[in-house]
Amino acid sequence: MECVDPLRTGLTVAEAQRVVLALAPQLAPETCASADALGRVLAEPVVSTRTLPPADNSAMDGYAVRCADLADTTHAAPVALRVAFEVAAGDRHERALALGEAARIFTGAAIPPGADTVVKQEDTERAGALVRIRVAPRHGENVRPAGEDVRAGELVLDSGAELGPAALGLLAALGRTVVAVRQRPRVAIVSGGDELVEPDSAVYEGRIVSSNSYTLSAQCRLAGAEPIYLGIARDTPEALEERLRAGSRADLIVTSGGVSVGDRDYVRPVLEKLGCTLVFWGVQMKPGYPIVFGRFGESGPLVFGLPGNPVSAMVTFEQFVRPVLRKMAGYSAWFRPVVRATLADDFEKTAGRMHFVRVSLEPKSDAPGEFVARSTGNQSSGVLRSMALAHGLLILPAAQTRLRAGERGEVQVLDEGFFAAREPGF
Amino acid sequence: MECVDPLRTGLTVAEAQRVVLALAPQLAPETCASADALGRVLAEPVVSTRTLPPADNSAMDGYAVRCADLADTTHAAPVALRVAFEVAAGDRHERALALGEAARIFTGAAIPPGADTVVKQEDTERAGALVRIRVAPRHGENVRPAGEDVRAGELVLDSGAELGPAALGLLAALGRTVVAVRQRPRVAIVSGGDELVEPDSAVYEGRIVSSNSYTLSAQCRLAGAEPIYLGIARDTPEALEERLRAGSRADLIVTSGGVSVGDRDYVRPVLEKLGCTLVFWGVQMKPGYPIVFGRFGESGPLVFGLPGNPVSAMVTFEQFVRPVLRKMAGYSAWFRPVVRATLADDFEKTAGRMHFVRVSLEPKSDAPGEFVARSTGNQSSGVLRSMALAHGLLILPAAQTRLRAGERGEVQVLDEGFFAAREPGF
Repeated sequence: MECVDPLRTGLTVAEAQRVVLALAPQLAPETCASADALGRVLAEPVVSTRTLPPADNSAMDGYAVRCADLADTTHAAPVALRVAFEVAAGDRHERALALGEAARIFTGAAIPPGADTVVKQEDTERAGALVRIRVAPRHGENVRPAGEDVRAGELVLDSGAELGPAALGLLAALGRTVVAVRQRPRVAIVSGGDELVEPDSAVYEGRIVSSNSYTLSAQCRLAGAEPIYLGIARDTPEALEERLRAGSRADLIVTSGGVSVGDRDYVRPVLEKLGCTLVFWGVQMKPGYPIVFGRFGESGPLVFGLPGNPVSAMVTFEQFVRPVLRKMAGYSAWFRPVVRATLADDFEKTAGRMHFVRVSLEPKSDAPGEFVARSTGNQSSGVLRSMALAHGLLILPAAQTRLRAGERGEVQVLDEGFFAAREPGF
Repeated sequence: MECVDPLRTGLTVAEAQRVVLALAPQLAPETCASADALGRVLAEPVVSTRTLPPADNSAMDGYAVRCADLADTTHAAPVALRVAFEVAAGDRHERALALGEAARIFTGAAIPPGADTVVKQEDTERAGALVRIRVAPRHGENVRPAGEDVRAGELVLDSGAELGPAALGLLAALGRTVVAVRQRPRVAIVSGGDELVEPDSAVYEGRIVSSNSYTLSAQCRLAGAEPIYLGIARDTPEALEERLRAGSRADLIVTSGGVSVGDRDYVRPVLEKLGCTLVFWGVQMKPGYPIVFGRFGESGPLVFGLPGNPVSAMVTFEQFVRPVLRKMAGYSAWFRPVVRATLADDFEKTAGRMHFVRVSLEPKSDAPGEFVARSTGNQSSGVLRSMALAHGLLILPAAQTRLRAGERGEVQVLDEGFFAAREPGF
């Protein structure tokens, strides 16, 4: 198949995001053990076949009573009830409460027939077979009504819900040990370049480790996707074709380095031979201009050719691949959080491209919810260390040429663990 | 061993947090494949044995030149250099650049001896064996110096660093395929109660599913710990002793429901028989007063007896167990983020206990970084649905009796995915 659409070039970041998201499908459901479904997106509405709790039950350890029996009780003249029997959680009802009787009851136990109220233990005084109560309870006090949490037939969790701990508890409570969730995107990762070696190889002059496969795999995992690392492709058409074919069953192919369009004349013919329609080449951003995006046929994988520099590959992944993975996996929020921060440094650039500057973020001690952003050092696209130290990327819009220390800017948060606190905060 | 310390009761949340954290040890290191170390905490300083990049190399596709050769070039009178050879990424140096020569060079390729500058392709004009250059470059332009990222002998990642994608890329680049990381806490989880069944069992009058094991296991996973679910303990001293012994090799034992102190007279004797020193019982909070904390001997597991109500178990886990797990695993930030939010509802309570109210959080459209908190419904400690809908817990301090709609309060964020954005935000 030949390229049919005209190849667009030099898109803005926003344009490129719109294009890739428009072509990203939501993946089909799969069936998954609920115990393994933490963080997954529900792909069916969950309607309860049960009532939870199944019966009126006690919220406290104490005595189940008939409220009317205690209407006249006072400190001066307490009413005494006969403790007729005991009900623990899990007990079946053996008998009903008669007039003037109380039942010893424990938290979670079903309220016996005839009883309507629970007096908590601390408000009672036991004397042999009798219990003395000095304060008249409210009707229904300390009784959790049947169906308080869920009624049979009710929609409990809707399709699209992300399954956190409480949702998994609800599924368990409903007896749903298996649920339909959105499939996780599988991402074939290919690094390209004759200079690349794996990290267990000796490095010698000119050779460098293919670190992108490790950063991109980790980024896939954090986005909820499953990376499949296909190894290093040498700079030949045959090697590239072999790797692209190996990735053809994935949902997405992400290449970095020499296999991108532009560096070698054979890349585009190989992609076209395999039926890839290139959609755009080049985005007005730094780091990361030379990014290419295409798709294999109508239903084949999307392909992202990311630049080879370690930071360029990571930053372009964040802007384009991650939102696509989040959409595919069914999440409702596809983008990283953005916080406003006061700059600790001056930043200058030429107009034309949007810049993404690696910064640390610190809470401002005098203003809760506000942050100070500080450059993490050398911003060369080859310097991973300043990326490892960064909590996020300061956005310098395309038209802007400078931001001064003390001014405010938007920071895309990459390290969500950054929100975790060193103090309890209350 | 007998209980030796006096058992404290009725602690404030802050007191109880201090007590549990003071007794929580940081776990020892283990050795882990770097490829599996995403999110783990480094337990050794990583010092580089390599220089990265290993040699001066080209940041662009273009021509490697001697800057001095181009000092006099102008648009009107461009200098032409002879293209003597080509260097691609990964090539070894075959020869040096002589006076008046240029070398065709590709991104990532080592700068050949003699060259000091790279003119990018777009600024050149190729004519057979010659390349014409019209603008004098800056000395060193487009050359990435050796050691720009890392110099041999340098501390690259310090002990205590959390390993994110960029750090994993750095480890790969340094050839560190195996690293020392802090062990993850193993948490033995026991549910107690004669009324409990597993979710695949039929439920009938009085029986309910042991959902706490599922919520608490998921909460452990989100905290970076490894849950070991030991099943349901029936309400007998023998069953409890058997389960506690089964958990004795874990770092932490978390029980919920009937196995906690207070509900049954045999619980404390069983704990003491096994050498458990109880440290406190009861924390001034709602939901969740009846929490017990102890430790087995000097080096045995810590034990948390959480209340049995589903929401009480989850909320007490968040306040006490999660910070302990984060400390044990070596993280520097142990606590959930807290954000200030404007309340959409009125909240009232009696003075005395700190209340944790399940709320959703929505960004305020007119004020970036600010949120509106709204009750997610029935706040009974048996209602998991309002917990499943909650982004966080509104804190109502112990002394406070009311907060009005429109006032501001602190919300502990439970669902960190809540920070993810529906729009790119820039």
